[in-house]
Amino acid sequence: MGTTESLGVGIIGLGVVGGGIIDVLADRRNYFKSVRGIDLSIQKIAVRDVSKDRPVEVDSGLLTADAQEVVDHPDVQIVVEVMGGIEPARSFVVGALENGKDVVTANKALLAEHGDEIFNAASTHNAGLAFEASVCGGIPIIRSITQGLPANHISSLFGILNGTTNYILTRMTDEGGDFDDILKRAQDLGYAEADPTMDVDGTDAVQKLAILCRLAFGVSLPYRSVLREGITDVSAVDIAFARDLGYTIKLLGIAKSGKQGLEARVHPSLVPSDTLLANIKDEFNAVKIVGDAAGPQVYTGRGAGASPTASAIVSDLLYQAERRIAGRQRVSRQLVDVQTVEPLAAEDIVSSYYCRFTVEDSPGVLAQIANIFSTHEISIARVIQEGRSETEEGSVPLIMTTHDASERAMLHASEEIGALDTVKERPQIIRIEGLND
Amino acid sequence: MGTTESLGVGIIGLGVVGGGIIDVLADRRNYFKSVRGIDLSIQKIAVRDVSKDRPVEVDSGLLTADAQEVVDHPDVQIVVEVMGGIEPARSFVVGALENGKDVVTANKALLAEHGDEIFNAASTHNAGLAFEASVCGGIPIIRSITQGLPANHISSLFGILNGTTNYILTRMTDEGGDFDDILKRAQDLGYAEADPTMDVDGTDAVQKLAILCRLAFGVSLPYRSVLREGITDVSAVDIAFARDLGYTIKLLGIAKSGKQGLEARVHPSLVPSDTLLANIKDEFNAVKIVGDAAGPQVYTGRGAGASPTASAIVSDLLYQAERRIAGRQRVSRQLVDVQTVEPLAAEDIVSSYYCRFTVEDSPGVLAQIANIFSTHEISIARVIQEGRSETEEGSVPLIMTTHDASERAMLHASEEIGALDTVKERPQIIRIEGLND
Repeated sequence: MGTTESLGVGIIGLGVVGGGIIDVLADRRNYFKSVRGIDLSIQKIAVRDVSKDRPVEVDSGLLTADAQEVVDHPDVQIVVEVMGGIEPARSFVVGALENGKDVVTANKALLAEHGDEIFNAASTHNAGLAFEASVCGGIPIIRSITQGLPANHISSLFGILNGTTNYILTRMTDEGGDFDDILKRAQDLGYAEADPTMDVDGTDAVQKLAILCRLAFGVSLPYRSVLREGITDVSAVDIAFARDLGYTIKLLGIAKSGKQGLEARVHPSLVPSDTLLANIKDEFNAVKIVGDAAGPQVYTGRGAGASPTASAIVSDLLYQAERRIAGRQRVSRQLVDVQTVEPLAAEDIVSSYYCRFTVEDSPGVLAQIANIFSTHEISIARVIQEGRSETEEGSVPLIMTTHDASERAMLHASEEIGALDTVKERPQIIRIEGLND
Repeated sequence: MGTTESLGVGIIGLGVVGGGIIDVLADRRNYFKSVRGIDLSIQKIAVRDVSKDRPVEVDSGLLTADAQEVVDHPDVQIVVEVMGGIEPARSFVVGALENGKDVVTANKALLAEHGDEIFNAASTHNAGLAFEASVCGGIPIIRSITQGLPANHISSLFGILNGTTNYILTRMTDEGGDFDDILKRAQDLGYAEADPTMDVDGTDAVQKLAILCRLAFGVSLPYRSVLREGITDVSAVDIAFARDLGYTIKLLGIAKSGKQGLEARVHPSLVPSDTLLANIKDEFNAVKIVGDAAGPQVYTGRGAGASPTASAIVSDLLYQAERRIAGRQRVSRQLVDVQTVEPLAAEDIVSSYYCRFTVEDSPGVLAQIANIFSTHEISIARVIQEGRSETEEGSVPLIMTTHDASERAMLHASEEIGALDTVKERPQIIRIEGLND
C-alpha cells in the first residue's frame, strides 16, 4: 500500500557529523522506504580533499571538491550543510535555497548571524529550511516548539545550551577541580574544541538562544546585542558558597517575554539546587519552556557530538522530504515574518544577586556595604560572614544575596562598594535565577 | 502572502478539557490564520445536556445532544473526541474515520483497548489520527518520538506516566504523610479522580505505556498482558528505607527492546535519587527515552489537566489540518503496520530488588534468608539490619537489596522466605531500576 517517493540528498562537509549522517541514513534508509514511503539517497558529497582516507565507507564517485556541484546538482532536492563557519557556508546555503532546494543545516553561527537573509531566501524561493541540529542536537527541541506547542504563548525559556561549559561547571562543582585542568580533560574527551573560546565566553549559547527566540517568540534577535558573560570568572570559591546557599552555578541562556520587552541574556547563574536544570550534568543540554497552556516543560539530552547531531539532521531530512512531497516544504511564515527586536538593555533587567566581596577583616565593613545597598534600595536576603581569616592579607570573603533589584542599581552599588578602602578586590556579582516563571 | 485554508472542527464532549480547547482555539485562531495559513472554526459540539450552563462561552447554535451529528457533519473535517470512555467513544471515532474525517483524541483507554481497529480504520479511510493528549498532555512526547527521533532505534523507555500516583508518592516521600490523607488532598486539588482506582492500580500508566510502545517500538502491545502493580502496597517505611539506600520510589512504566523480546511493565520502582526521574515531583510526568543515535533524553511537564490537554489537542488540530491540506493526512504506516507483541513473561525479567522482611529478632534469621537467596543464586548487594526492636511483637525489619537476578528466582526465594517461621509478614519486594540503559 502506498508509493515510495525518491529524493536526492547532497551533503556539504564530511567531518565527523557528515560521517555520522551517512551511517545513520544507511542504517535507516530501508525503514524510511518501507514505513514512511520515502527513499533518501545520497547523490553528492562535497569534501575539502577528495583523496583523503575516511573512517566512513562512501562511494568515491559521490565525492567532489566543489560544493557548488552539490548546490546545482539536478538530482539533489535537499542539501545538508555541515561544513560550518559563515563563509562560504552562507553562499552555499543561500545558493541552494535560490535553486529551490531544501536546506538542512546544523550551523547555529550562520543562522544567528544571517538568519533573516536565509529564512527570507527560503520563503522567497519556496524552499524548506530545517535546523534541528543547530540547537541541542540530541533533543528535538525545535520540533517540540514548532509542532508541539503552537497552542501556547511562551512566556520564558531557560537553557543549558552549551555542553562544554556545562561539563566544566559540573566537574568544578562535583570535584572542586580547577578550570584549566577540567578544560584540558573536556578537550581530551571531545567535549571541548581545541579553541574553546566561543563556548567558554558564551557566544555559542547566545547564538542558540537567538535561534530559540525566533521559534518561541517570533522575533529576530540580534545576538550580538544579547547580554553575554562567560564562565571564566566563575571560581571554585563561588561554587562552594553557592552550594552552601542551596544553589548550583550553571551557564544559562535566558529569554523572557514581558511588558517591558524581550529579556535575553547568557551568563553564569545561581539556580536552586533542587531544580531539574541544576541537575543537568556534564555535557548534557536542557531547555525549560513555560507555555501558558501546557505549563512548564523541561527537555534534556545530549547537545552535540556526531551521532546526536546526525540524529537531528536525519530527522530533518525526513521532515523536509515529507513536506516537499506534500508540496508544503516552504519554511513556516512564523519564522520568516518576524520583527527584529533588540533585547531589553542590561541595566533594565531585574534580578536577585549573589555577591562576594573580599573585605578587610575589621569592624564596620559590613555596615559600610549594607549602607551602600540601602542607598540604592537593594534589599539584602542573606549574609555569610566567615570568621577571622588566616590569610596573610587579613582579608575575608563576605557573601551576600539580594532580593530582586534593578541591574542599574546593582551596578552602581557594586562600583561604590568596589571603591571602598576596606574592599580588596573587584566584587564578584553573579545573578540568581529562580527558574520559577 | 499565501492563502488561508479553512477547516471545520467538531468536538464530542464539553467537559473541562472541551472547554479548554474552545478557550485555546479562540485565543490562537487569528495567529494560526495569519502565520500558519489555517483557519480552524468550530462547526459543531456534542454535549450531554444542551441546556446546561457552561463556564465557557459558546454559541448555543453549535451545540447538539447527538454526537452522530458531529460525525456526519459535512462542514466538519476534523473531529475532536474528548468524551472519554470506551463506548460510545469508539463508535464515534471509528465512524468519523470511516467518513474520512481526521480524529484528534485524548482517549488513552480507547487507544490502548482498540488501537489496532482505530489505526486500521484511519489507514483504510485515508484519515488522520492524532493523540498527543492521550499521553503526558503537557509534553509533546508523541511528536518528539515520531517527528524528532525517526533516525533512532529506541532501546528503552522509562516513564512517570501518571500524575496522581506521582503526586501521592512525592507527598509521602517529602512529608512522610499517609496514603489515604494524601489521596484525599490530591482529590481536592483535582490531581486525583473521585474514583482513583485506574490511577492507583497502574491501569492508566499501562495504557499510556502501550501507546508509547506503538510509537517507540512499532508494536501493538496488549496492555492487559503488561505486568502491572499499583502503589497501594508502598508504605512509608519502604520510602524511608529506600531513601537511606539512595533511592526514591516512583511508579514507572518501563519498556525495553532486547534480544529476548519486549519487556513492558508498570510497577513501583526504586530509582537512584540523583537521577532526573527521581526528581520529577508532584503531578508532573516525565519520559526518558534512549535512542541509539540521539542518546538518552528526558522530557517532563504536566501530564494532565484541562489546559495542558487542550494545548496538546490544539497542536494536534493544527498538525492534522496541515497534513490534510497537504493531502497527506493519513496516519503514518509506522503506527498501522505493527505486529502484536506479547511482552516478555514476568518471570523472565531480570532486575535487582529491594526486599523488606519482617523477621523475628533472634539469631540466625539473617543466615536463613541469606541461604535461601544463595540457593536461588541471588546475590545480595546490601543489608540493613536494625538494632533490637521495641515493638511488642519482637519483630524487626530486615532490608536487603540484590544484584541482578531473574524474577523467577526471586519469586521462589521470596516464597520460601515468607514461609519461614521466623518471618512474620509477607515479604515486601520492590524492583530497583537503575535507569542507565
